[in-house]
Amino acid sequence: MSAIASDAVRDEAWFAARASRGVQGLRAYDPGHDLVAFRRKFGVDNLVELGSNENPYGPSPAARMAILDQLHSLHRYPDPLGLDLKRALAARHGVEVERILLGNGSHELLMQLGQVFAGEGDEVVFSRYGFAVFALATQCAGAIARVVAALPSDHASMPLGHDLDGIIAAITPATKLVYVANPNNPTGTWFGREALEAFVARIPAHVIVVFDEAYAEMADAPDYASALPLLARHSNLAITRTFSKAYGLAGLRVGYLLGAPGLVAVMERVRESFNVNGPALAACEAVLDDTEYLQESLRRNRDERAWLAVELAQRGLRVFPSQTNFLLVEFGPNTALVEAALIAQGVVLRPMGGYGLGDCLRVTVGTHDENVRLLAALDQVIG
Amino acid sequence: MSAIASDAVRDEAWFAARASRGVQGLRAYDPGHDLVAFRRKFGVDNLVELGSNENPYGPSPAARMAILDQLHSLHRYPDPLGLDLKRALAARHGVEVERILLGNGSHELLMQLGQVFAGEGDEVVFSRYGFAVFALATQCAGAIARVVAALPSDHASMPLGHDLDGIIAAITPATKLVYVANPNNPTGTWFGREALEAFVARIPAHVIVVFDEAYAEMADAPDYASALPLLARHSNLAITRTFSKAYGLAGLRVGYLLGAPGLVAVMERVRESFNVNGPALAACEAVLDDTEYLQESLRRNRDERAWLAVELAQRGLRVFPSQTNFLLVEFGPNTALVEAALIAQGVVLRPMGGYGLGDCLRVTVGTHDENVRLLAALDQVIG
Repeated sequence: MSAIASDAVRDEAWFAARASRGVQGLRAYDPGHDLVAFRRKFGVDNLVELGSNENPYGPSPAARMAILDQLHSLHRYPDPLGLDLKRALAARHGVEVERILLGNGSHELLMQLGQVFAGEGDEVVFSRYGFAVFALATQCAGAIARVVAALPSDHASMPLGHDLDGIIAAITPATKLVYVANPNNPTGTWFGREALEAFVARIPAHVIVVFDEAYAEMADAPDYASALPLLARHSNLAITRTFSKAYGLAGLRVGYLLGAPGLVAVMERVRESFNVNGPALAACEAVLDDTEYLQESLRRNRDERAWLAVELAQRGLRVFPSQTNFLLVEFGPNTALVEAALIAQGVVLRPMGGYGLGDCLRVTVGTHDENVRLLAALDQVIG
Repeated sequence: MSAIASDAVRDEAWFAARASRGVQGLRAYDPGHDLVAFRRKFGVDNLVELGSNENPYGPSPAARMAILDQLHSLHRYPDPLGLDLKRALAARHGVEVERILLGNGSHELLMQLGQVFAGEGDEVVFSRYGFAVFALATQCAGAIARVVAALPSDHASMPLGHDLDGIIAAITPATKLVYVANPNNPTGTWFGREALEAFVARIPAHVIVVFDEAYAEMADAPDYASALPLLARHSNLAITRTFSKAYGLAGLRVGYLLGAPGLVAVMERVRESFNVNGPALAACEAVLDDTEYLQESLRRNRDERAWLAVELAQRGLRVFPSQTNFLLVEFGPNTALVEAALIAQGVVLRPMGGYGLGDCLRVTVGTHDENVRLLAALDQVIG
């Protein structure tokens, strides 16, 4: 059989059959609507983009200055170690540089944790309404997903929140990884220090727990707690953070992991040198220095989040509790119609069917102006 | 055993033992010298950086303009599909958009080809002096590397070039992937249309061949041939290209793959949305349009390459034939001493010990001024 004769059958199925078992069952991440097309249709200024949990205030102006400084050296490879940024992050979090790993977004880090530590026959535990990438990382690695039911939607204090007892109960000798987002995307829910410490204390010694804290900076509830202080005592924990949310740099793709030096060293073997590009490294360093801007941006988000939640509730919509920059909102059986009608008015929210929450939409908390435009459009649609 | 008690043993070995078999034997890519440290020591203007095969003329000015245009939207996620850039690349190469996959550098694509198509027990074939990432991708996937000896260093026409017959002979029923760079890094060697077509015709139908053409734009020898025209007839070929070399955008990390739509579709499952960041997408689109700048930059490289090769040969050094923007140069038993002495003068070349070519250095062809400074420093050292 010649190579040419066989070409007719080399379609996606042919290549998939030659791929690893994990990839055979994998479907690509669904990034939501085609916003590039929407921007062309409506014009950027007429579009209210509240579907991707971006920071509507943008990054500190220091980010733009840092990128301008990079424009003369675009032809040079970036620092393969990203050492200046790692040093700045180490200082910020009060940890050793050896505890920090840089990623092309935390998405890359979450995928690589699966790639490195979970294989065929291994089990990975995460919550029903956890970040979509947990399931992708598990499937890509060919591992078995143990999906734990969330707290019931009529739970008194944290509807749809993580059932930490359930997660512990799902761990078996075959479990390699546990992914837990706190606060969680797409529910907005969270848990506090007491629950966190009890949870970590019950994790068997053979399991690595990944806390995805992409929204940590936005949490101000007294009962929210980052896993950061636990790192020193528990070396089987890893924490992922991102510059895409609070720092307003989603366009640059930078996330980082904090963990035991040994874990970081093993992950470094898989990390591609230069995985974070030059302008991105420079901009992240710069925004880390501008804590005043960050605090102001977080304050605005908190104020708008509280205001928007009240406004939505006054319209008879159920709003789930949130410590992030978005609100999960229940629109009921007509959710898809509402979403389409909002898009027709240039307001983009995120449908939740892919998460099994088809009667909800995820609403990014925008600027006050954007939130007002959202509410006005909503009043037209459901009024 | 409590989690705390076990912490003492959770060092790199503990995590490595829990990693996939491939990662257990993996060592990270060696990016060469710490150039950030050298720049601080010597000052950017006093340092002659000829170690990383970057384009010394930088990118088209259109790249900087495109990035300036992005500065207002750093808080927005980039287009997850990178569709505008893919369309521009499709038009440039005269292929369908479905044949193009974007990578965070071609490094990412080469790694993911291994991740997707090679697993434990599978074999991957590549040449002894192939790009270091071929071996990394193979090892990371847990596959078996079949390393084929290069043509002898006294070969009449292409010393250290690929032994294409040897590569064919190394293919077995267990072979999943073949990586071939043309022109090759770090040797600079290449092969032509006749050899290419004969090679492809002999590839068994079950094998995927990856042609790494990172330096393709720089080749002008009449006997060099890209595999691009073969794509339409042979769906088991994939070609990787990069914006890091001819286009002068190493700092932005963008590579792309051209292949069968089915291969691209399977790879898309593993690609992380947003793997190429916003400024990078915009800059690459922009430089693709400026063909005049590209041609001028390539012309200068060819002229300087020819001149530098003669100058080095006149100093009694052996220069291997090259169709790239670098020269492999044999310095003999004192290579390490020469390299260190050049660094002391602020001239950085790339040592080749990691490739098993310890008596050679890889010399990037710089601007005329940089090449003159290199030769002057060299005359001091070996004079």
